[in-house]
Amino acid sequence: MRWAYVFAALVVGWLMAGFSLAGNAAEHWQEARIPGTSENAITLGRDLDGDGDPDEINIRLEVIEVQEEVYPGEKVTFWVFAPEGQGMTTVARVPSPTIRVEEGDRVRITLSNTHYFPHTIHLHGTIHPNDMDGVPDITQPAVKPGESFTYEFIAKNPGTHFYHCHVQPDVHVLMGLVGMLIIEPNRPNNNFNHLVIGAGRIQDMAKAAMEQYDREYSLVYMDIDDRLNRIPAAYKDPREIEKRMHREYDSTKRQPNIFLLNGRSFPFTLRDTPIEVAPGERVKLRILNAGARAIKLHTHGHHPTLTHLDGYAVPEGMRLTRDVFDVGAAQRIDLELRPGSDSFYASGPGVWIMHDHTETAITNKGISPGGDITAIVYEGFMGEDGLPRVATSLDRFFDPEYYRGNIPVFDPAIFNTTRERYESGWPEEEPAGGRFDYPVREAN
Amino acid sequence: MRWAYVFAALVVGWLMAGFSLAGNAAEHWQEARIPGTSENAITLGRDLDGDGDPDEINIRLEVIEVQEEVYPGEKVTFWVFAPEGQGMTTVARVPSPTIRVEEGDRVRITLSNTHYFPHTIHLHGTIHPNDMDGVPDITQPAVKPGESFTYEFIAKNPGTHFYHCHVQPDVHVLMGLVGMLIIEPNRPNNNFNHLVIGAGRIQDMAKAAMEQYDREYSLVYMDIDDRLNRIPAAYKDPREIEKRMHREYDSTKRQPNIFLLNGRSFPFTLRDTPIEVAPGERVKLRILNAGARAIKLHTHGHHPTLTHLDGYAVPEGMRLTRDVFDVGAAQRIDLELRPGSDSFYASGPGVWIMHDHTETAITNKGISPGGDITAIVYEGFMGEDGLPRVATSLDRFFDPEYYRGNIPVFDPAIFNTTRERYESGWPEEEPAGGRFDYPVREAN
Amino acid sequence: MRWAYVFAALVVGWLMAGFSLAGNAAEHWQEARIPGTSENAITLGRDLDGDGDPDEINIRLEVIEVQEEVYPGEKVTFWVFAPEGQGMTTVARVPSPTIRVEEGDRVRITLSNTHYFPHTIHLHGTIHPNDMDGVPDITQPAVKPGESFTYEFIAKNPGTHFYHCHVQPDVHVLMGLVGMLIIEPNRPNNNFNHLVIGAGRIQDMAKAAMEQYDREYSLVYMDIDDRLNRIPAAYKDPREIEKRMHREYDSTKRQPNIFLLNGRSFPFTLRDTPIEVAPGERVKLRILNAGARAIKLHTHGHHPTLTHLDGYAVPEGMRLTRDVFDVGAAQRIDLELRPGSDSFYASGPGVWIMHDHTETAITNKGISPGGDITAIVYEGFMGEDGLPRVATSLDRFFDPEYYRGNIPVFDPAIFNTTRERYESGWPEEEPAGGRFDYPVREAN
Repeated sequence: MRWAYVFAALVVGWLMAGFSLAGNAAEHWQEARIPGTSENAITLGRDLDGDGDPDEINIRLEVIEVQEEVYPGEKVTFWVFAPEGQGMTTVARVPSPTIRVEEGDRVRITLSNTHYFPHTIHLHGTIHPNDMDGVPDITQPAVKPGESFTYEFIAKNPGTHFYHCHVQPDVHVLMGLVGMLIIEPNRPNNNFNHLVIGAGRIQDMAKAAMEQYDREYSLVYMDIDDRLNRIPAAYKDPREIEKRMHREYDSTKRQPNIFLLNGRSFPFTLRDTPIEVAPGERVKLRILNAGARAIKLHTHGHHPTLTHLDGYAVPEGMRLTRDVFDVGAAQRIDLELRPGSDSFYASGPGVWIMHDHTETAITNKGISPGGDITAIVYEGFMGEDGLPRVATSLDRFFDPEYYRGNIPVFDPAIFNTTRERYESGWPEEEPAGGRFDYPVREAN
Repeated sequence: MRWAYVFAALVVGWLMAGFSLAGNAAEHWQEARIPGTSENAITLGRDLDGDGDPDEINIRLEVIEVQEEVYPGEKVTFWVFAPEGQGMTTVARVPSPTIRVEEGDRVRITLSNTHYFPHTIHLHGTIHPNDMDGVPDITQPAVKPGESFTYEFIAKNPGTHFYHCHVQPDVHVLMGLVGMLIIEPNRPNNNFNHLVIGAGRIQDMAKAAMEQYDREYSLVYMDIDDRLNRIPAAYKDPREIEKRMHREYDSTKRQPNIFLLNGRSFPFTLRDTPIEVAPGERVKLRILNAGARAIKLHTHGHHPTLTHLDGYAVPEGMRLTRDVFDVGAAQRIDLELRPGSDSFYASGPGVWIMHDHTETAITNKGISPGGDITAIVYEGFMGEDGLPRVATSLDRFFDPEYYRGNIPVFDPAIFNTTRERYESGWPEEEPAGGRFDYPVREAN
Repeated sequence: MRWAYVFAALVVGWLMAGFSLAGNAAEHWQEARIPGTSENAITLGRDLDGDGDPDEINIRLEVIEVQEEVYPGEKVTFWVFAPEGQGMTTVARVPSPTIRVEEGDRVRITLSNTHYFPHTIHLHGTIHPNDMDGVPDITQPAVKPGESFTYEFIAKNPGTHFYHCHVQPDVHVLMGLVGMLIIEPNRPNNNFNHLVIGAGRIQDMAKAAMEQYDREYSLVYMDIDDRLNRIPAAYKDPREIEKRMHREYDSTKRQPNIFLLNGRSFPFTLRDTPIEVAPGERVKLRILNAGARAIKLHTHGHHPTLTHLDGYAVPEGMRLTRDVFDVGAAQRIDLELRPGSDSFYASGPGVWIMHDHTETAITNKGISPGGDITAIVYEGFMGEDGLPRVATSLDRFFDPEYYRGNIPVFDPAIFNTTRERYESGWPEEEPAGGRFDYPVREAN
């Protein structure tokens, strides 16, 4: 197996470089190469409609098995689509990168299968020929290890779409072979980076988005049953892995226990994928549920407006404003967030958390707080340590022992005791009314 | 117990016969008798409003226990409402037949309880007197074995409705006592068959549907925890069955593992309930979720428009177009599908799968692909073998061994091995990092 | 631990008293004191806008552990916010009281933590300063046992909102620290009671509601995994409870088995929280899902119209009428119910049940009928025994043995046997096809 490591510092540097380059004149515009990727990972061709931006977009993706620490102490194995790497280097990151193209572009996405299992790419929500639909056996044979296949289509319907592997989807989708695919409306000189590694903030907004919005975020939600994800790292023989993942593991009995936003759970979400805003701005949130549960997304202190469903615009007069949005499996919603103090859309500056309101899903394996909680962080509320300025220390949540259940969730002082006495234990108490079972956390 | 067998060839013949008869002049119109049903199963009375079609509709339904092979090798026991049979013959099929009546009709549905448990029929979504609501103890005593009860109402609100048993609904609904009930808008000479056995394509469309659509489908989704369905076939004494199904089996712990569209799972769905279309048509999909889960219905390559919720029209300007639709338990949605190549509603001809996007639910007991996957099949893409023309052979999915987990899901050649060597096994590998549990498929 | 008992008769008396007082002139209006509460539980201040009603609202809430019989024989432990009690008396009732304030009010809700764990109050849906958001560690330190904190905000956005503890929400929310919070639109002389104990009918409607509606109900849905709720009553040492509830109990594996409307399951719902209506009325249903599941709310014989989502009005032309409404975790919907016989919105007088259509959730621990089933009861259909007039006796559902699984769900006579012979048992039958497992109810 091939392991991938993300060099976060390099990527941050690249994001900033790409952003500045995007401001150049179109004829000189050249996409900044993502450090660690091959020169073929993204190649741009001709400007077919003569409007100042390239309309032939070629992207090469590999399939990489990667381990990531999603919250303190929890390393999870994922499979991701990653831009073609350079030598032994890859830029693999869960979720698979957000792909961005422009309406009218001739898009070629080449799946170069570097993995030990067959895969495909299903383009979900886009308009494309039937033989580009990526459904194994139905529209094409699955792409075998060592082979490649190019998905080719002209981008037609602008919006927030989805791409994912369609081979054995109850396993491959939930292992992380998922990413957002955005078709930007056609505009002159519409130059932007075509991949957003790890999703999150889109720094070089496309022209149409800039007409209406000040900031833009790509938010990919996932749910993980880590008992599935442990299999590939535990065995060496791909036949053994095939048998265990695809024929023994019963996905109908899965119980997701890790809940991710852009590949991270709280508290890492606060650091890696906060929603930074300023009063008076309009912020576009592109949201994809790449998991198998329905999420109920709640924005504290804010009432966003639903502008798009599955990439298609909701007509102006029909746009609902509320505070808990449904996002079912594979659905996409675009929200317009209006930070400020208008008292209808927003409550005023500060640090406002945003999360699935399924209470059991804002835990890390049953320990709260965790899961996909992030925060809407107003200008001036981000600290120098890269974390939002909040009321108390969050240190204990960065201690892996907390999510192993080894640290009391409340200060022992409130019980007139100490952590030491906590740890020394106390006499086992016989429950009043007799013993009973409840679901217990598994030891890691 | 009485077992029912559907004679598929006869039924197909009947469907075609009914279709041709529907073209006759109204005064001569007579509904074709469904082979295997009694002459009282459907009886039509007077044309009360003098507009050329009968307005007194009498339907007699029995309750039948039936076993059906829902995918290769998997026989499941269901209870269904079936049109009154002839002698020992019945036309029992899961789901219960789609019932169709016209606005203004005087409808009489007689439940003749031929089963060993009490039952009722709840009319869900229709307008009817309170004592016709079919809720045991609340609006009537449950109908005991050997007794009958006639549900009588004047059809008022046109739309896609639902009927089901309301006795012990956590068991009886999920055992299959569910069907779609359509009230067609009133039109002159509105002659059509009143039952669609097994749901699916509606061949003799009613007048109002024909005004706007070229084809029409009745799609009933169900989810099954087969551990419940195994109980009635396993025991002979109804008291034993009562105790086990209603008092021991804890439905709050159910884990559905079989997912049906019109009583079939993939690959049988491709054969028995494909969505056949032609470019330029408008196709009406009437969808009922008769299960206990919420489904997220995705149409590959197509973006249908939501026209009705629970049978009630969504006003024209408010109709949303998207690609993943929520259908919760007991909800009905009507979709307008516009096959073609317009690049907004449709991507062009071919075979496009359509399925719940909950990945774990498009499996057959945890083995993918399965569940409610069917396909939108364009004209010219249906093969002579009754299956859509697809990219590779689907043969292995028709082999019961595949869904028993005995056939590798990938061609062993990709691992430089053979199926024989696969079957001979390999040394048990100790998992790296120690043993761990994951949910395993139960042997059948 | 401190146990609370509700004196139902007193509360009923208080509701009637408050209702009559509300008719008095504004300057003389004084809120009736809820029997058992301290004189500081609710205090009203100045009329700041001079329109005849008080605009300074001070509410003091404690946190109380309470045991309630939710259906016959089932006592469940909850934690609730309760108005400050008098001496050892409290008015604790699950769910926490519906809080009502007026747009423009200066609201002060003091959380006086009388419990052994830290808590907060998160105001969900209201506009309020960031430091009033009630998120522990993020916007404030959690309120320790013995301490208090005052949440202070000016009520801005009228609508149906939500308040709940935000400490360890996977446990605290699901233990019952949840209530509805209504902001009534500003009107002159808008006098009403500020707390509705146990939610349910709102007898003293606010002015704006009276402009459009004849009756109003506050409906709070919850789902309980009673294995969690059993922990605090089983152990005495709060450290033991902390460890078991917050670090051992894995909420991601919860399986809710008790389903509540306003703190009751069927059949108690029929008695304690029916929806009483009369033909021709307009009835406002304010609905909050305070559980962690999505419910699919079905109104038999009626098609309500959705007027508000999460407290925000749906524009007039966009209001959908259907018969099964989605209400996800933390979502609120307001419905307009139009009882009568118009054959579009309503089917006519009678007793029409209303319930989540997830069949497994209208059981009490897997025994049907149960859960959140209540009924829309027309004038003249409520019996003198306080139960709706229905078709048969409901006596057996009031017998705790029924929900212990000790009474056959069908009359044994239909099997030509007797309950005595049922109880004497019969020879164990070997299942045809061999033994198999299914999920079995746990003994209480």
